[in-house]
Amino acid sequence: MSSTRHDLIKPVVAQLQAYDPSKRPGQVKLDANEHPFALPPVVQEAVLQALATVAINRYPDPEAEGLRRTLARMLDVSADMLILGNGSDELVQMVLMACGAPGAAVLMPAPTFSMYRIGALMLDQQVVEVPLTADWGLDVPQMLAAIERERPRVTFLATPNNPTANCFDPEAVRQLIDAAPGVIVIDEAYHAFSGQTVLPLLEAYPHLLVFRTLSKVGMAGLRVGILIGHPAVVREIDKVRLPYNLNMYSQVAAEVVLHHWEMLAPEFQTIIRERERLRARLERMPGVTVFPSQANFLLAHIAAGGAKVWNALGEQGILVRYFPGSPALQDCLRITVGTPTENERLTTTLQTIVAALQPLIHS
Amino acid sequence: MSSTRHDLIKPVVAQLQAYDPSKRPGQVKLDANEHPFALPPVVQEAVLQALATVAINRYPDPEAEGLRRTLARMLDVSADMLILGNGSDELVQMVLMACGAPGAAVLMPAPTFSMYRIGALMLDQQVVEVPLTADWGLDVPQMLAAIERERPRVTFLATPNNPTANCFDPEAVRQLIDAAPGVIVIDEAYHAFSGQTVLPLLEAYPHLLVFRTLSKVGMAGLRVGILIGHPAVVREIDKVRLPYNLNMYSQVAAEVVLHHWEMLAPEFQTIIRERERLRARLERMPGVTVFPSQANFLLAHIAAGGAKVWNALGEQGILVRYFPGSPALQDCLRITVGTPTENERLTTTLQTIVAALQPLIHS
Repeated sequence: MSSTRHDLIKPVVAQLQAYDPSKRPGQVKLDANEHPFALPPVVQEAVLQALATVAINRYPDPEAEGLRRTLARMLDVSADMLILGNGSDELVQMVLMACGAPGAAVLMPAPTFSMYRIGALMLDQQVVEVPLTADWGLDVPQMLAAIERERPRVTFLATPNNPTANCFDPEAVRQLIDAAPGVIVIDEAYHAFSGQTVLPLLEAYPHLLVFRTLSKVGMAGLRVGILIGHPAVVREIDKVRLPYNLNMYSQVAAEVVLHHWEMLAPEFQTIIRERERLRARLERMPGVTVFPSQANFLLAHIAAGGAKVWNALGEQGILVRYFPGSPALQDCLRITVGTPTENERLTTTLQTIVAALQPLIHS
Repeated sequence: MSSTRHDLIKPVVAQLQAYDPSKRPGQVKLDANEHPFALPPVVQEAVLQALATVAINRYPDPEAEGLRRTLARMLDVSADMLILGNGSDELVQMVLMACGAPGAAVLMPAPTFSMYRIGALMLDQQVVEVPLTADWGLDVPQMLAAIERERPRVTFLATPNNPTANCFDPEAVRQLIDAAPGVIVIDEAYHAFSGQTVLPLLEAYPHLLVFRTLSKVGMAGLRVGILIGHPAVVREIDKVRLPYNLNMYSQVAAEVVLHHWEMLAPEFQTIIRERERLRARLERMPGVTVFPSQANFLLAHIAAGGAKVWNALGEQGILVRYFPGSPALQDCLRITVGTPTENERLTTTLQTIVAALQPLIHS
């Protein structure tokens, strides 16, 4: 390379630790907060029939009108309040591009979903993180102080929060919406399991953006994220959307699946029941603390050592999520609620691992 | 909204004219440079069989390994030299994020594919455009002067260029690769119709990035763009890729289609033959000038008035591309080469329209 050449890569990217989707082989996949059930056969059949009509030599509908109208109807909002992204990841990027600015502050609690931070860094924005309280609640005084001091153009709150699994206090969320000097994203990715939403606040707060996703309700493979906001703000953010960001197959398949929503909805109730069963069993294990969850996963603190247990589970083909490099999450594992069989397998395996490590704790 | 609130939208976005995918109804769609032929039935059948095995409740393979390996083999490069994007649009954005920087220059000729300019603006980068020569060639002295003056971190060249349809002189391209102080993207989206490539130069130039796409070879609906570069540079750019940017169905379908490449390749030869037939017929029309093309479309100058003819074609259900707001392309229409039937319909309709407008020119 010529010596007069720039460094080819922007320094912040050269130093960036990219998101790690932690691709490992495993028979029991409880590491990505996926829905554990495949489509019901009748829905799968309907999807495949619809896919057979798709002519992939054409560009997809740039506005994904069919899917957007279906979602608008389900969410009881108008279609001009929706933007669909190639997963919420893309929506994070779009909001930062449209509403943030290089050097401007982006506020978020910590720990939270890592793509807010990574997205802001990639766009040369300044990440401002405020630690959650000891029980994973919002530290409202500190968040308000950060708002006053940093004047963030974008604020991210996920509720239920990932990976802590809890919903934030609605009154605390409301206070931060009130105070936010730029846009504030309330990411409700796990809404199907919490039932809580700020959607009714949209009318009063034009700077409020709500995220939903199809990834946690059985369609992670399609990559469909949903942004809901005030039409005037949505129109502007939509300008930074890549014109054909949602491929044809995903548009068509998602619409068909959503038309069968009444068949999927009971599965989310099953997950909630399984979550509580799993939580009760984990809590009975020595040295295991499970935090309250309103999502489709549990965060557990393992006194015997998160890394050791994570490794031992992996050796048995059971994948869960571990957070090396996050002091706040030291020795914590994030465990997706799986099928009853998967949860059984996790519990018995974990039981054995923890029992074997137990003497080490007391030695 | 509180009066202390920021303007919610970044000024450059508020002023941005978004990409216009010009969605209009029409029976003959010659406005998006799509491949006009649907998949051969045997390929379609193989695709649907593969799609039936996909479990969309899981996240897609973050590295799209199967598809990447297939493409690497076809392109005769190693898989660590490839990044796949959700269309080349996303790759444009990734290169600008990883290699460009806010305020830094992004160099491109004009006119060219509009997403280079829009992508750079969205990321607060400084667009530097150098007009093409009168016959749509690269103005090498002016490009070199711009490189010296602006030190662009990113340079974009599309060859064949869109919408001018011509390949740039390979020696001129080589000179600009030599001089580029940052990365230089050579976008070979229309390679299937030109046969020209700079891939052999990759070894000597680590700052060279080559783009290809599946959109022009029958898979626009899948959204798969391909970046090829030096492994060390690719590794860094890959950090800004959204972890699950390529949905499951597109990964699976594209791989199956590519395994039947020998059935598709003759179709591109048909398009090339049809292009030359279409060109000859258009050139015979009074007041119509057709520029040389090595792509799957023609750029034609219509003395009778581009807007008028564009409108008249649209009224007959024939969609072509028109470029209002680009003085260099005034009265030019971009016409995708369609099926023989579509080309016939375009020719006879255009003939009638031009003949009807003819007296107006001479009056």
